[in-house]
Amino acid sequence: MNAERQSWKEVRDRIRDQILDRTYAPGDKLPRDADIAEQFGCARTTVQRAMQDLSDTGLIERKRKGGTHVRTDPVSRATLDIPITRLEVEKSGATYGYQLIDRRKLPMPRDIAAKLEQVEPIPMLRVQALHLADHNPHIFEDRWVSLETAPEILDVDLTRYSANEWLVRNKPYTRFDLRIYAISADEKIAKMLATEPGSALLVIDRTTWIGTATITSVRSFTVPGYQLLASN
Amino acid sequence: MNAERQSWKEVRDRIRDQILDRTYAPGDKLPRDADIAEQFGCARTTVQRAMQDLSDTGLIERKRKGGTHVRTDPVSRATLDIPITRLEVEKSGATYGYQLIDRRKLPMPRDIAAKLEQVEPIPMLRVQALHLADHNPHIFEDRWVSLETAPEILDVDLTRYSANEWLVRNKPYTRFDLRIYAISADEKIAKMLATEPGSALLVIDRTTWIGTATITSVRSFTVPGYQLLASN
Repeated sequence: MNAERQSWKEVRDRIRDQILDRTYAPGDKLPRDADIAEQFGCARTTVQRAMQDLSDTGLIERKRKGGTHVRTDPVSRATLDIPITRLEVEKSGATYGYQLIDRRKLPMPRDIAAKLEQVEPIPMLRVQALHLADHNPHIFEDRWVSLETAPEILDVDLTRYSANEWLVRNKPYTRFDLRIYAISADEKIAKMLATEPGSALLVIDRTTWIGTATITSVRSFTVPGYQLLASN
Repeated sequence: MNAERQSWKEVRDRIRDQILDRTYAPGDKLPRDADIAEQFGCARTTVQRAMQDLSDTGLIERKRKGGTHVRTDPVSRATLDIPITRLEVEKSGATYGYQLIDRRKLPMPRDIAAKLEQVEPIPMLRVQALHLADHNPHIFEDRWVSLETAPEILDVDLTRYSANEWLVRNKPYTRFDLRIYAISADEKIAKMLATEPGSALLVIDRTTWIGTATITSVRSFTVPGYQLLASN
């Protein structure tokens, strides 16, 4: 029993030490927060904060009804925040620019339908746009928007306001799918991003749904040198 | 007042609707969970679960003492779990393989010291290793390990057991920095991954600390076609 006031970091470190010395082995269930709080002589909210941190970094798993377990297969867990592109550019200190390349209603191609898990064809708007930083290409986005879920997009002046910003602000999602990978720029993409064909580009594919209804699917081609960052 | 039993998803959708119709505008503070629970006639834990979901997707921000606010700049938020490479390969159904390429104590080069925010030179072990999937190269990792924080690594048989797995299992971190980007493979990396020079590769740079002490910094070069996935 230690009745002194302990910070949540001290409590976290004590719990982590107990995991590392196998007091609690991988797969083991940890005591209830209230019991740990009593054992350590600290507030239950302090234990909760410590547990949150151990969970955020992937060492333990918390379940609402199943309690807390030591992960059998620890992971390196990171929270990736993908901001609205305009804000990302402005935050970096650069001047944001935006060009609508194309905007048209189109039948949904098969590969997009598959990504959207959409069996029935739905009316879609395809929007291609270029985001600039200090007048240089930054991200080229090739986007499909469901006109069933987001018919209001037809009233948005996409020559001035990006579909990216409009959707993030107005169409929150309940489900998403994210894929990050590298490609070699083909002729078209290279020209769009003012780089050489064959350049290595980071690509971010995102699809969002609200309930079971598709909102949008977008492939973002980033300029060479682009980095996705995360830290805690 | 609605005394019927509501699911957290219904509560989430009601709160989200209030944000979308600007009952709560960007930057506004939401009522306390307890007050929303009373207003909606549901349990406070139901409101907490709904809020967690709205926070996970980046629409609101929760602070322990500052309450809940509607984000001014919503983000698309994703949790990225980077598993131990062996488990990632095995989960995909492939056979995992591992080759130690090189392991040596070396003075810390300047660019690594900068990444580690390390002013004083510390003894480091550099470990280069190849992870294979079905006998094909999968990830080549170029890693630096602090011998101050993780001296036990010198006793690990790195010809059989990867530094990746040993560190994830034995050296939990309190702080990390993650960078994801694309490069064109140079001759050396291309040869290592059995691909052509110039191939586009996804690279994952990770550095971890415990407190202020560096644990490891690793650059993982993934094979062409590799994808990082996240969903909720």
